[in-house]
Amino acid sequence: MTETLRADARRNRERILEAAQDLLAARGLSVPIDDIAHLAGVGVGTVYRHFPTKEALYEAIVLARMEHLVEIAKEFAAGADPVESFLAFMRTTIDRAAEDRAVMERIGDAVDVHEVKASIKVELDETILALLRRAQKAGGIRRDIGLPEVLALLSGACVGFNAPNVDAAVRARGIDVLLSGLRPA
Amino acid sequence: MTETLRADARRNRERILEAAQDLLAARGLSVPIDDIAHLAGVGVGTVYRHFPTKEALYEAIVLARMEHLVEIAKEFAAGADPVESFLAFMRTTIDRAAEDRAVMERIGDAVDVHEVKASIKVELDETILALLRRAQKAGGIRRDIGLPEVLALLSGACVGFNAPNVDAAVRARGIDVLLSGLRPA
Repeated sequence: MTETLRADARRNRERILEAAQDLLAARGLSVPIDDIAHLAGVGVGTVYRHFPTKEALYEAIVLARMEHLVEIAKEFAAGADPVESFLAFMRTTIDRAAEDRAVMERIGDAVDVHEVKASIKVELDETILALLRRAQKAGGIRRDIGLPEVLALLSGACVGFNAPNVDAAVRARGIDVLLSGLRPA
Repeated sequence: MTETLRADARRNRERILEAAQDLLAARGLSVPIDDIAHLAGVGVGTVYRHFPTKEALYEAIVLARMEHLVEIAKEFAAGADPVESFLAFMRTTIDRAAEDRAVMERIGDAVDVHEVKASIKVELDETILALLRRAQKAGGIRRDIGLPEVLALLSGACVGFNAPNVDAAVRARGIDVLLSGLRPA
C-alpha cells in the first residue's frame, strides 16, 4: 500500500467513526450502516472493510473517544503552567462528558464499554496522575488528594453537571466550586 | 380505631417498609411478599392491607426515603451554627446516597421514581434553599451559588463518591474538596 492509499484509508476510517458517533447520538443503535456510509461520504463496502461488524464499530468508537481524552490529557500535561493545565484538563473533561454520554450510553447497551476502556485506562490514569502531581508540586493543588479522589470528583461532576436540567451558567459555577475546592486551604 | 391500634398499625407499616427496603436492596424486585412479611414480623395479610400491590409498596418506599431526607434537612435547618449545619447536611446526604441507590435503582425499574418524588420535591427544595441562604447570610458559603448549583453538586457527589471502587477515605477527602469549594474565596 502506498503512503497516499494508507492516508486515504485512515481518513476514511476517521470519517466513518465521526459519522457513526453523530448518528448514534442522535438516533440510537438502530441507525443502518448505509446511513453511516452516506454521511461519511464512503461506500458501504468501505465501512464493512474497516468494521466487519457493528460491535467492531462500537468498540472502535469507545476506543477513539478514550484515545482522544488521553491526547487532551497529554496536551495539558505539556502545558506551561502546571496548575492551570490541571484545572483546564478537569474543566475540559467535564464539558466533554455531555457529548460522550449521549454516545456511550447507547453503545453501552451493545458492547462491554468497561472492557474496551480497560485497555487504555492505564495510560489515561498515568497521564492524569502526572498532571495532578505536577500541579501539586507547583503548590497550586492540595496535596492530600491522589488519582482516586480526582477520578471520583470527575465522574461525579460529569454526571451532576451534565444532567438535562443543568444550564451552562449553573454548570460553570458548579465547576468553579469544584476547582476552588482543589486549591490548597 | 383506638390510639393503641392506630399506633400499632403505624409501627407495622414502618416495619414492613424497613424490611422491604433491606430485602429489595439485597435481593432485588423478585423478593416475595412472604419474605418481607416474615422479616417485618407481621402476617402476609397485614402487608396487603397496608400495600395492596407491589407498586404501592415501592411508591411508599420512595416517599418514605424522601420524607426522611426532608426531616434530616429540617433538623439541620434548625441547627445552631448555620454554616456547619449546611455543610453537615451536604455530608449526610452524600453518605446516605449509597444506601439509597441500592434500593432506588431497583425500584426505578418498576415505578416512575421521578413522579413519586415530584410530590415532595418542592418541600425538600425549599428546605435545602433555606439551609443554603442561612449559611450564605452567615458569610460561610459563597454567595454566587443557588439551589441549582447545590443540587447539581449533590447529585454528582452522590454518584461519584458512591461508586463501588471508591473507599471511605477517598470519599471523605472528595467530600472535603467539595465542601471547601463552597466556602467564600
